[in-house]
Amino acid sequence: MDKLAFDTRCSLVSQAQMEAGWRKLQKQVQAVRDHRNLKDEHASLVMPDDATTVEAVNRIAKTIGPVHLLIVVGIGGSNLGTWAAQEAILGKFYNTTDATPKILYCDTVDADSVSSIQDNMEAHLKKGNNVLLSVVSKSGSTTETIANFEVLLQTLQQYRKDYKKWVVATTDHGSHLWNLAMDEGYHALAIPKLVGGRYSAFSACGIFPLAMLGLDIAKLRKGATDMRRQCSSTNLRQNIAAQSAIIQYTHYTKGINVSNLFVFSNDLEMVGKWYRQLMGESIGKDHKRSGKKKLTGITPTVAVGSTDLHSMVQLYLGGPHDKFTTFVTVPTKNSIKLPHWKQYDPLVKDIQGKNMGTLMGAILKGVKTAYANQQRPFCEIKLPAKDEYSIGALLQFKMIEMMYLGALLNVNPFDQENVEAYKKETRRILRK
Amino acid sequence: MDKLAFDTRCSLVSQAQMEAGWRKLQKQVQAVRDHRNLKDEHASLVMPDDATTVEAVNRIAKTIGPVHLLIVVGIGGSNLGTWAAQEAILGKFYNTTDATPKILYCDTVDADSVSSIQDNMEAHLKKGNNVLLSVVSKSGSTTETIANFEVLLQTLQQYRKDYKKWVVATTDHGSHLWNLAMDEGYHALAIPKLVGGRYSAFSACGIFPLAMLGLDIAKLRKGATDMRRQCSSTNLRQNIAAQSAIIQYTHYTKGINVSNLFVFSNDLEMVGKWYRQLMGESIGKDHKRSGKKKLTGITPTVAVGSTDLHSMVQLYLGGPHDKFTTFVTVPTKNSIKLPHWKQYDPLVKDIQGKNMGTLMGAILKGVKTAYANQQRPFCEIKLPAKDEYSIGALLQFKMIEMMYLGALLNVNPFDQENVEAYKKETRRILRK
Repeated sequence: MDKLAFDTRCSLVSQAQMEAGWRKLQKQVQAVRDHRNLKDEHASLVMPDDATTVEAVNRIAKTIGPVHLLIVVGIGGSNLGTWAAQEAILGKFYNTTDATPKILYCDTVDADSVSSIQDNMEAHLKKGNNVLLSVVSKSGSTTETIANFEVLLQTLQQYRKDYKKWVVATTDHGSHLWNLAMDEGYHALAIPKLVGGRYSAFSACGIFPLAMLGLDIAKLRKGATDMRRQCSSTNLRQNIAAQSAIIQYTHYTKGINVSNLFVFSNDLEMVGKWYRQLMGESIGKDHKRSGKKKLTGITPTVAVGSTDLHSMVQLYLGGPHDKFTTFVTVPTKNSIKLPHWKQYDPLVKDIQGKNMGTLMGAILKGVKTAYANQQRPFCEIKLPAKDEYSIGALLQFKMIEMMYLGALLNVNPFDQENVEAYKKETRRILRK
Repeated sequence: MDKLAFDTRCSLVSQAQMEAGWRKLQKQVQAVRDHRNLKDEHASLVMPDDATTVEAVNRIAKTIGPVHLLIVVGIGGSNLGTWAAQEAILGKFYNTTDATPKILYCDTVDADSVSSIQDNMEAHLKKGNNVLLSVVSKSGSTTETIANFEVLLQTLQQYRKDYKKWVVATTDHGSHLWNLAMDEGYHALAIPKLVGGRYSAFSACGIFPLAMLGLDIAKLRKGATDMRRQCSSTNLRQNIAAQSAIIQYTHYTKGINVSNLFVFSNDLEMVGKWYRQLMGESIGKDHKRSGKKKLTGITPTVAVGSTDLHSMVQLYLGGPHDKFTTFVTVPTKNSIKLPHWKQYDPLVKDIQGKNMGTLMGAILKGVKTAYANQQRPFCEIKLPAKDEYSIGALLQFKMIEMMYLGALLNVNPFDQENVEAYKKETRRILRK
């Protein structure tokens, strides 16, 4: 299968800086290379090769059989990987096609959104359609997820006596949610203890809903496995996760505090949002690994091309030098040709009769040239396709990059201690 | 009608700093206060009171009559205001309700998205439904918009002999698109020359599609008119646009280069994206008004609560002090109560039987307390409702804020000269 390519020619990082970063990374590359178990923080690395997960997922998917509507109830790491892969592979407009199952994501406790999801769910249930609730919470105690799950489960119960067959809980083995699933007779899938939410795309958390949608999970995993091999390489020219981490680190040390993932495909916007969490939580830290107090972090942003050329590029090209950009480009699946209408020629020159892909290509090239001319640093990820293999590879590339970036910044990319600050307050308020 | 409130108590800007900013703003406040015509760059200010626009919009809307599907073909300032108001007022899930017309936005030349929009359009046309193309381009020569319009028009022609009745072009009077509309016999609506794209929400650009959706345009305009009066006040305590601009300016001068609009409602995400363009293009500049070369700009970001507490708050609370936050909060239209299930109590304490709004309130309060405890500066916009009046007020508040921020930073908030850099390259490539 075609491999994704990573072009660093306009990164504005020198060979000497690359080599300096690479020396700092040696131990971490070794760790990624050697890791083979679920026993430490690198556990997520082995997920694409974890036969246990796939067997459990396939067994439950087979038991459940076809469904008309799949509702993923989860938030943050519990739904972003799934959403990213689903939209990238099946398209942003998937739910308006004839394909089944439809998929909805229920994340925050926004009564207006939850109410719309309930309406949608009831329309299916009234027709006798099968609706599956996939509730995902690693800890098993996420406020939003449990609240939404209870509300949607209550709706399900009103229509289906056999509702227990239509619930799959994905959580830590032994969490309160796990125990509840056992007591109530729901299906249950385990996320290994040391696989954190934002690294869980290849655990049951991501694999199960994607399998229910009929995606080729083996190819997704193969993409990730191949990419791990590449990003474990002791040859920096091969190791694109190390390259990307060193480039971002180098710019950060020079005061660049924004990292913009600029995807030139609508279908990849959720990959951007997934990466936003990955970077935000992994390296936004108030202390170093050593325990030393030091505020660290790069703000991840997502832009969609060419849309955001008409909203953000004035800032990107005119504003301060505080951003590093990674373009993500991919061929479209569809080919659309413009008509050749002479009377439209005065409106925009040189586009009549051309392929839409040609226009997008010219726009992208124009943007990259303008960035290069103005010394705005960027790299480009060239995806061969929006298929399972490429998306599996892309997600794994970025997860390993984040482990490397954590090592370079000397922060722990696997914890998220500061979220406790607001959760503590929220619990206190709810107790009253 | 209830007015939106702006709470600045946790802005971490001193009284002296507020007063210093206010002194700098006097001339600009006077300009906003006195402006009454379409003859200079403040033209957008009079749009909510412009009877000509409303008459033209109503006349064309009446001529066209009911449609089943409205496709807005436009990009950046040509669709963001419409999209923001539509989703805020009608909800993110509007297209899945029974209401008509459905609405789709066709912005970038992404063949996969355009193809899905075509499919959707054809499904309607095959049923004999009315599909309206609202093509919006101020210049009349936006590459993406003209390309997409031609492609969708070709589809429309295949099904409807009377296709000319189902096209509305909204553009500068006398642009090539305007002239084409005259030649071909399409409906045409003018955007006044000096009303720039990102300030055009209350011109025909926004008003026409929103009127077609059945929204109460009079209320939207009333909200904007009332807000302009408030934000023209020579009393800083009344003038919330000035307050917000001074606060953001003060933080920017202290090195804060990210402005995060943190909306606690899914339906407001597009308002965030609209504001992102407004801020990105208005103050991202490579020179001052004086002509002096100086890179200026704040990076606008959008977060959705509570969703992004599970992706970005680790960075917001743990990372560098480089962000200013504006929370936007609003009551939901729906009330949903959790069941009271004892066996779920071990999962999350103190939520059984509670209202979803109570949960969201506790989460929001927890976040604000954590921000305040950690000296993370923020303000809060409290919307009374997601209705026409409040959204009209909110958009006008932010547009005037941007005029003030431009004045404080001494940049021109109305132009976008740097986008020419990539467009020039793109044209050169297309010519070949």
